[in-house]
Amino acid sequence: MADEVILLNFWLSPYGMRVRIALEEKGIKYENREEDFSNKSPLFLQMNPVHKKIPVLIHNGKPVCESLNVVEYIDEVWNHHSPLLPSDPYQRAQARFWANYVDTKVNEIALRFWKTEGEEKEAAKREFLECLKLLEKQLGDKPYFGGDKFGLVDVALIPLVYGFYTYSFYNYFIKDAQYPQITAWVKRCAERESVSKCFPEEQKVKEFVSQKKKNLNSD
Amino acid sequence: MADEVILLNFWLSPYGMRVRIALEEKGIKYENREEDFSNKSPLFLQMNPVHKKIPVLIHNGKPVCESLNVVEYIDEVWNHHSPLLPSDPYQRAQARFWANYVDTKVNEIALRFWKTEGEEKEAAKREFLECLKLLEKQLGDKPYFGGDKFGLVDVALIPLVYGFYTYSFYNYFIKDAQYPQITAWVKRCAERESVSKCFPEEQKVKEFVSQKKKNLNSD
Repeated sequence: MADEVILLNFWLSPYGMRVRIALEEKGIKYENREEDFSNKSPLFLQMNPVHKKIPVLIHNGKPVCESLNVVEYIDEVWNHHSPLLPSDPYQRAQARFWANYVDTKVNEIALRFWKTEGEEKEAAKREFLECLKLLEKQLGDKPYFGGDKFGLVDVALIPLVYGFYTYSFYNYFIKDAQYPQITAWVKRCAERESVSKCFPEEQKVKEFVSQKKKNLNSD
Repeated sequence: MADEVILLNFWLSPYGMRVRIALEEKGIKYENREEDFSNKSPLFLQMNPVHKKIPVLIHNGKPVCESLNVVEYIDEVWNHHSPLLPSDPYQRAQARFWANYVDTKVNEIALRFWKTEGEEKEAAKREFLECLKLLEKQLGDKPYFGGDKFGLVDVALIPLVYGFYTYSFYNYFIKDAQYPQITAWVKRCAERESVSKCFPEEQKVKEFVSQKKKNLNSD
């Protein structure tokens, strides 16, 4: 029997994008189901009763939650090609460390940047630049964070950074080639089909953001 | 050449205890080095420049940071016996999910409980009890969170819950056998040598807390 793979998702979520990128890297066929947060589906609530968050991967009826956990699961189940984690335990620990750094530190700052204004926003921007500086150093002159192969840290980070890039925020952060390694890495990742096909169209994002603003103003 | 294993630690840290428990479970000899946070050692700053936090495991000169990451590393390197993660990918994903739940949700609430007073403290207590309720359900009538074997989730949680238990806070939370499964699980874990030998003496903790209070009052 073929595997049944369903992804409960929201098209703009960077966490959902991580899972989609991992599935694409592995060449796994899956059904993407968009969740309506104003009217959560019974299946969604049944599959992630603890956090009630997307993404949820349902593999042959069983749910896996939390994006990095899902990516590791995908890597372990479909281990026949395109490994996302290295086989050496020390390299694996390094990959998990940096993926966790992205998931906690970078993500927390990015969220703060989106949600605040004025001095708080500027502070978040400064901290984000500090993170980029650290990541630039960590990346060095390697093609990907783990070395020659696209892997867990790339999957964790690219939806966050590419999001900035695509939606015209990139230049706000990364000017005058301050971060040449990261800039080259973003372009390198964007050239991968697994990455480029998982990002929503710029026009769709603009319309969504514009509608959100209208709703806020009419409240 | 024998492995050189050094743990940079602080004796009261539940995160450090996780690593110690994992090392004890595996029967690994290691050197425990206490860090003085008021005068951080050059080795410590060199080994964890990103977070500057303990625990840091230094294995043959190379550092691994972040407690759950270290526990997984230990499990992968010393995989000859006492596995802390199951071999089945789905069960592994479940273990990582619940360990992550403990590391984020339970831990955040526990910290808030210690640091606040009055209504905020009461709110943290209520949330902590909700977490315990969920964990009680998840544990069910299994001896350990993963089933018959002591594993990752037990290692992640026991330093937090046993800390409450040992230092007379347990009764504050867990009265009248509200959580019989968790209560039995704490006792079951406490009977393991790997766990009991990693916890500091009650007297030492009391003296430390008393000194901290004196310092606060004299400020």
